[in-house]
Amino acid sequence: MTPPKELLHFLKKENNFIIAAHISPDGDALGSSIALSMALESLGKKTIVYDKDAVPEFYKFLPGNERFTDSIQNSSRFIRDKIQNLILIDCNDAERAEIEKLQFASSAVIDHHETARNFGDIKWIDPKSPATGLMIFYLIKALGADVTKEIAANLYTAIAVDTGTFRYSNTTPEVLRASAELVEAGADPSYIAENIYETWTSNRFRLLLKALNTLEIYKDIAVTHVTLEMFRETGAAIADTENFPGYPRMLKSIRVSALFREIENNHYKVSLRSKGSGINVAKIAEMFGGGGHRNAAGYKIRSDFNAAKEALLKAVRETA
Amino acid sequence: MTPPKELLHFLKKENNFIIAAHISPDGDALGSSIALSMALESLGKKTIVYDKDAVPEFYKFLPGNERFTDSIQNSSRFIRDKIQNLILIDCNDAERAEIEKLQFASSAVIDHHETARNFGDIKWIDPKSPATGLMIFYLIKALGADVTKEIAANLYTAIAVDTGTFRYSNTTPEVLRASAELVEAGADPSYIAENIYETWTSNRFRLLLKALNTLEIYKDIAVTHVTLEMFRETGAAIADTENFPGYPRMLKSIRVSALFREIENNHYKVSLRSKGSGINVAKIAEMFGGGGHRNAAGYKIRSDFNAAKEALLKAVRETA
Repeated sequence: MTPPKELLHFLKKENNFIIAAHISPDGDALGSSIALSMALESLGKKTIVYDKDAVPEFYKFLPGNERFTDSIQNSSRFIRDKIQNLILIDCNDAERAEIEKLQFASSAVIDHHETARNFGDIKWIDPKSPATGLMIFYLIKALGADVTKEIAANLYTAIAVDTGTFRYSNTTPEVLRASAELVEAGADPSYIAENIYETWTSNRFRLLLKALNTLEIYKDIAVTHVTLEMFRETGAAIADTENFPGYPRMLKSIRVSALFREIENNHYKVSLRSKGSGINVAKIAEMFGGGGHRNAAGYKIRSDFNAAKEALLKAVRETA
Repeated sequence: MTPPKELLHFLKKENNFIIAAHISPDGDALGSSIALSMALESLGKKTIVYDKDAVPEFYKFLPGNERFTDSIQNSSRFIRDKIQNLILIDCNDAERAEIEKLQFASSAVIDHHETARNFGDIKWIDPKSPATGLMIFYLIKALGADVTKEIAANLYTAIAVDTGTFRYSNTTPEVLRASAELVEAGADPSYIAENIYETWTSNRFRLLLKALNTLEIYKDIAVTHVTLEMFRETGAAIADTENFPGYPRMLKSIRVSALFREIENNHYKVSLRSKGSGINVAKIAEMFGGGGHRNAAGYKIRSDFNAAKEALLKAVRETA
C-alpha cells in the first residue's frame, strides 16, 4: 500500500490544512483524522480537525480527541486566510462531511469506501484497505513523521474498529503486521478494546436487552427493533445502538441481521450486518438510498415498521 | 520463545505419542493438540489425540478434529505396546486431563497456565505465552515440519480463543506477527471468528438472554446466574454458557463478572472474568479450589446460590 506521490507532494508543499471526517464519526474516522493531524503538526504544519458531529463519549479515550471542532469558523486554531486546503478522511464526498458549502483552494481525499464519488483534486481511495487508519499509517511513514505513542493508539483504534478487532474478512497479514508495529510504538490492545467494547452505560445495556428481546427470525434474516418508547424508558440514545445489529449474527442460521431504530414516528434508521463472504449488504442499502461496506451498511426509510421490514425482507430475498 | 532442547530431542527420538489435553477442552487445547499431531505425523511419527470429553459441536470446524478419541484403550490408532510417551497439552497436571491412573514411559508438558504443578519429565511451561498454540507454532517450526493450511487454521484458532481475538492484555506484537504468518499459511480469520463466535443455536441465544436478565450489580461486580430450570426451558447445555460471563463485562462500571451455573441442586459451576490489568480472578478462583488465568478463571462450589454469591462477593472485596 503506497500513498500516491501527488498526495505526498501536496502535504509537503502546503502548510495549512482542514482535516474533515464524515458525520457520525466512527473509530476509523476519528483515529485517522487525529493521527494525521498529529503527524502533520510534528512536521511544522497547522491543522484544524473538523467534524460536524461531536466525538462520541466512548471515543474520548483517544489521545488528542480534543483537536476536533464542530465549527470551522469559530475554531480558535483557525487562521481564516491561511487555511484553504482540505483533507477529507474516511469518506469521499463533501456531503458525507456536510462541508459541501465551503470553498477550498485544493482538496485531497483519503478513503477506503467502495462507492467512490467524483470529489477531490487528489484522490487516494483504496477499497481493498481494511481501514483508512491503515492508509494513514503508511502515509505518516512515507512523510517521514514519527509514529508516536499517541498516533499509534489512534491508528490501532481505527484499524481495530473497522476490522472488528481482526474478526472480519478484511483481516490480512498486512493489517496484523501493521498492528504489531503499532503495539510496539505504544498502542495498548486491551486498553483500546476495553474502551471500544467495554465502556457501556447501564442504560445502553438495558436497551440492548430490550432490543434483543424483539428478535424475529425469518429463515436466515434476523430482525430486531428499537422504538422511541424504548429509548425513553432506558434513557439511552441512538448512538448507543452501535453494534446492536451484530448480536443476532451470533446465530449460526443467520446470514443477515437488520436493526430498525425509530428516530421519529414512521421514520427508521436501519443497520444491516452480514457474515464473511455472504450477502453484500452495501448493495441492499444502496437500493434504499444508503451505503456502506460488504458486511456492514445502512439506510433511512420513512414508513411504518411493518412495511419497512417487509420491503427489506423482499430486497434481501431478491439479492441472495 | 524457544522450545527447550530436551523437548525437541524427545520428540525427534521417540516415535509414538499420546497427546492429551485437559477436560472440557477449549479452542487452545483442541487446536494445539491437533496441530501437534499433524506436524508429528508429517515427520513419520504415530500419535493418539486424547481428551476425556468430546470435541464441542462448534469446534468441529477445526480440520482434523476427528483425531480426538475419548478412549485410549479402544482407539483404532492405538498400538498398545508401542505408545508409552505422553505429551500433555494446555495443562500441567495429569489430573486436569483425568489420565492420572495411566502409566507412561516418559512425559512432556507444554502449557502456559500460571499455576504449575510437579508433573512431567520434560516441562515447557511459559505463563508469558498468550496461548499454548503460540508455543506449538514455534515448536513445529523448530522441528522442521511444514505449517500446512490445516495446522495454521488450528493454531490461529488456538491463539484467537485465548487472546479474545486480540482483545486481551496478552496481545503482544509477537502474537500479531505469528498470526500474520498463520494467515499467510492459509488460516482464514473471518471464517474462524465466525465459527468461534457466530455459530450459536437459538437455544443458546435464548439462554443467554435469560442469563443476562438475571443481572445483579454489586458496585463493580456483576453477577448473573443460570438455573437448572433455564437449562430445561431452553434445551441448552452447560457447554453453551461459554462466554456468557463476558457480556456484563461490557459495562464500564464492572471490574469482575461472575456467572453461576447450577449443575445440580446446591452445586454451582462459577466462571469469573475481569478486565485488563485489573483484578486477578485466578487468585480468587484458587481460594475456592479452582484456577485459571488473570482475566478468566473458575471453580465449583456446593452451596445454595445466595451463600455462594455472598462468599464470592466477600472474596472479591478482600482481594481488590
